[in-house]
Amino acid sequence: MNIFNVNCQGIWYGGWGTDEKTVISVLGHRNATQRKLIREAYQELFHEDLVKRLEHELSGDFERAVYRWNLDPADRNAVLANVALRKESRDYRVIIELSCTLSPEELYAVKCAYQCRYKRSLEEDIASHTSSDLRNASSSILLLLVGLVSIHRYQGNEVDLKLGKSECKILRKAIEEKLYNHEDIIRIVTTRSKSQLMATLNSYKDEHGCNITKHLKDDSGNAYTETLRTTIRCISDPTKYFEKVVRNAIKKGGTNEDALTRVIVTRAEKDLKVIMEQYYKRNSVPLDQAVAKETSGHYKRFLLTLLGKEG
Amino acid sequence: MNIFNVNCQGIWYGGWGTDEKTVISVLGHRNATQRKLIREAYQELFHEDLVKRLEHELSGDFERAVYRWNLDPADRNAVLANVALRKESRDYRVIIELSCTLSPEELYAVKCAYQCRYKRSLEEDIASHTSSDLRNASSSILLLLVGLVSIHRYQGNEVDLKLGKSECKILRKAIEEKLYNHEDIIRIVTTRSKSQLMATLNSYKDEHGCNITKHLKDDSGNAYTETLRTTIRCISDPTKYFEKVVRNAIKKGGTNEDALTRVIVTRAEKDLKVIMEQYYKRNSVPLDQAVAKETSGHYKRFLLTLLGKEG
Repeated sequence: MNIFNVNCQGIWYGGWGTDEKTVISVLGHRNATQRKLIREAYQELFHEDLVKRLEHELSGDFERAVYRWNLDPADRNAVLANVALRKESRDYRVIIELSCTLSPEELYAVKCAYQCRYKRSLEEDIASHTSSDLRNASSSILLLLVGLVSIHRYQGNEVDLKLGKSECKILRKAIEEKLYNHEDIIRIVTTRSKSQLMATLNSYKDEHGCNITKHLKDDSGNAYTETLRTTIRCISDPTKYFEKVVRNAIKKGGTNEDALTRVIVTRAEKDLKVIMEQYYKRNSVPLDQAVAKETSGHYKRFLLTLLGKEG
Repeated sequence: MNIFNVNCQGIWYGGWGTDEKTVISVLGHRNATQRKLIREAYQELFHEDLVKRLEHELSGDFERAVYRWNLDPADRNAVLANVALRKESRDYRVIIELSCTLSPEELYAVKCAYQCRYKRSLEEDIASHTSSDLRNASSSILLLLVGLVSIHRYQGNEVDLKLGKSECKILRKAIEEKLYNHEDIIRIVTTRSKSQLMATLNSYKDEHGCNITKHLKDDSGNAYTETLRTTIRCISDPTKYFEKVVRNAIKKGGTNEDALTRVIVTRAEKDLKVIMEQYYKRNSVPLDQAVAKETSGHYKRFLLTLLGKEG
């Protein structure tokens, strides 16, 4: 019997509804590959799907966090995107985070997983949503999001500084004329490589003494410019971006458990440590302490385990 | 010495500039995998790149045809797209053919090959072209083409007939109001699965007694509706579409060798036989006879070899 079978026995004999600690201590300390092997071993031993079993046995924020954690990363992102798109007031941040922080290969895998689960493409579901606030907000939001998700961005480091300067001027002109949804803005933000886009944004900062996001903020209240700002922030500095998502999720009156879970679960095996450092730098309180203060029970213990601070 | 080394020797001893027949008879009868092995064997034996050598030794339409034939399919499509985009009067057909006839996996490989060769993304090059007739024609063309190339279409066969009917109405309304570049047309054509799109187009035909392409033709002369028509034709019936490209390439006064080569080379290992049948059905002349009549020399022999009629 290998280690993963032993893990399964641990979960099984832990007794559902009474010993969530076992679930936390076993699964919270396994990486994506190990979790997959545990799921496979569980299926083989008990002839049922561990993820479904946990979904049935656990509840609330704890259940949702464990469920997301147990999915393969690509599948998890597909689920997160679908949940966000089905909300009455759609949460574009999930779509932006996916498209701006994953590698083209990872993003491609998410799109395949999405199609496999929902029998439609992610792009199709973004573009065709007619309910809620979307059509009213602006079709530019759709264009931006579909572009971000679908376009296969070049990953190389080559930078054309002259092009950066000329596209900086195009951006500036559009913003001065308050043509925030100018097609060139969407083109530059969605199609240029990150290195090239950074060169353009740096040129903007050099020329105008502040980040383009500050100028976009002058038009805040407009859902499209908000989406554009979020996109540029997420591309420019993902760590800073995620720190802010977590900060807002914890501090604003009631905790936003969905956002908190999303950042911790999706970043745990990527850059969560750097986000924690950034959080401490910005708030002078360690993230785990802040999380411990605002959450409780098994959910709290699970998040702290993923933060590497308990269990 | 394996068969591919023997093939290389054959090409080598064939004597450049004098015995193109060897090139034709060896390479014209090998599939993509075999050609790749021949290239590798050639590199190993003679320490030079066979494709480059042939480019140097051959000339004109024959050289271009052999060059394209020898590239890996994904790489070949990347080259074809780049050549089309660099033309003063851009040939959108190449982009449409790529995006509407390749599987998502093949299209992804083309985009990777494009980035590898040109250090930019294909989407970026389509969207950022500011020269020539493009910006004047309509930014809708760009939106359509970038959407086609970038969006990962769902491949499943599930069809929602109700959705098909409702989107048929949307298309009809846009066309009646002469809003050919309405965002919904682009959304439906670029994001829906081919099966779903076919259901919508069939519903259009049932309701209005003719294909949507016929109604789009009423606005011919407009570069955008032309592009849209080509797209719908290429998605709806690729065989019929390619037959027409070949027919026009051969019959119109001077032969369009670029188009003729492109169809024969890119379809040879896919559906060229079906295109030939379609051609015969439509023109009452076998395609190889028509090609033989309009071409000459090594170029003619090479095309006929790919058509399976000589060598």
